[in-house]
Amino acid sequence: MSFEILKSHKTFGGKTIFCEHQSNATKTVMKFSAFLPKEKEKIANAIIWLSGLTCNEENFITKAGAQKFLKDSNTMIICPDTSPRGIGAPGEDESYDFGTGAGFYVNATTDGYKENYQMYDYIVKDVVELLKDGFGVSNIAITGHSMGGHGALVIGLRNPDIFSSVSAFSPIVNPVECPWGKKALSGYLGDKIEDWKAYDSCELIEKGARHEKTLLIEQGLADEFYKDQLLTDNLADLCDRVGQSFKVNYREGYDHSYYFISSFIEDHIKFHQSNF
Amino acid sequence: MSFEILKSHKTFGGKTIFCEHQSNATKTVMKFSAFLPKEKEKIANAIIWLSGLTCNEENFITKAGAQKFLKDSNTMIICPDTSPRGIGAPGEDESYDFGTGAGFYVNATTDGYKENYQMYDYIVKDVVELLKDGFGVSNIAITGHSMGGHGALVIGLRNPDIFSSVSAFSPIVNPVECPWGKKALSGYLGDKIEDWKAYDSCELIEKGARHEKTLLIEQGLADEFYKDQLLTDNLADLCDRVGQSFKVNYREGYDHSYYFISSFIEDHIKFHQSNF
Repeated sequence: MSFEILKSHKTFGGKTIFCEHQSNATKTVMKFSAFLPKEKEKIANAIIWLSGLTCNEENFITKAGAQKFLKDSNTMIICPDTSPRGIGAPGEDESYDFGTGAGFYVNATTDGYKENYQMYDYIVKDVVELLKDGFGVSNIAITGHSMGGHGALVIGLRNPDIFSSVSAFSPIVNPVECPWGKKALSGYLGDKIEDWKAYDSCELIEKGARHEKTLLIEQGLADEFYKDQLLTDNLADLCDRVGQSFKVNYREGYDHSYYFISSFIEDHIKFHQSNF
Repeated sequence: MSFEILKSHKTFGGKTIFCEHQSNATKTVMKFSAFLPKEKEKIANAIIWLSGLTCNEENFITKAGAQKFLKDSNTMIICPDTSPRGIGAPGEDESYDFGTGAGFYVNATTDGYKENYQMYDYIVKDVVELLKDGFGVSNIAITGHSMGGHGALVIGLRNPDIFSSVSAFSPIVNPVECPWGKKALSGYLGDKIEDWKAYDSCELIEKGARHEKTLLIEQGLADEFYKDQLLTDNLADLCDRVGQSFKVNYREGYDHSYYFISSFIEDHIKFHQSNF
């Protein structure tokens, strides 16, 4: 799977790149950013970062300060865009939490969306192939924020053979039960709630999905979305009950922003590196 | 000098704040951001960061990753906006390199600008007073990027009693001689080149201005503005000739972006901390 580098910025001795490629899954050109710690060395490991609502491929790589913690390692990070763009689907640009910038990492089945909004396949197939064939990576971990934390948990739990470890910042853990999730899943998958459950980390674990490594979750206690949208405790209680190893770090005073992510990204990078 | 906190985000155990206050110099409400490493302790030291063209108070605090390097220290950083906004001056919003977002840290004398575009006084008087009275800081260093690097050099060289040390990333060192500088200085100060020289670090040093500490400059060699706008070598040659201590770190492969700044901001923080 080939890709084109649109911009490259030397950063901490490595390079931050902005790229695009033709996606088989979405049938569109998709953009991503990445940080490669050393230009000359072969890179063994990759972390996929899935961003949240309204984000594109730029937010994390610009704001999280992750390069500093990867610069001397053999680990790259890749940040895909969060949806196809400009396909003209009905209602695509009418709200911040559906359509453009809000792909929710599902394979859509509804009219207007099913042709291109195949974000689950985009990550699991295209981005994984890109990492293996395009960047020569052997081991892949997955993480993300909010909607992207949901994506990381769902994709990691459904593909434990592909993703060596899974973590999330402020994830939507139980979208079937929260307003953001209900809106997106009904819009992309239709009205049958059974169909939504393949994209809900709590429902997946309830039905037996497991990851052999600990699920690491970072959750700010001053996060305005914690109680109504993220429902972190639902996942924690469930993992406890069924024996899925997990760790939720509840962080006093931290909110939903990239200032929170930047404060703890080093811990998540080290966590994934310890599991490669 | 009082100020209002508009937003506060816990970051690395401290807080990133976005604020506004009434400026005596610009006669407008001005915005700034800051990072305070520890909420409870009195903060002894501050670094002023002056941003470049098109920037506002957000760019540095969001993109540079400086919080990580200040979190365990007794040093805050403050990032003022780069111009008054929305005053309705003629041509204020017609180009990226003059007017809004392009105050050049001068006290304007031209019609339409002289009432509010008093950015030199804003930094030297209002921001300094804000740090001393509002935040209780004792020692102040100054740095910045591009247009803000120019501002830091000029303001630091003209006020060595106020600013304990001076550094800059990719500064416009000789604005009297470059297109950006000629456009801005003529627009803010009129056609007499003699009047521009009070805002040109090379002209100031030529006329005897000195700082007892080393001027530290970071310059990327892949910076597209290096040869035509920044003129770094003019300052280096001059400092060498007149005996002003300086150090220019020319960095192979680095460009003019925040990816460059983030890669070396730790060195500049340590430099200023060693001079408090």
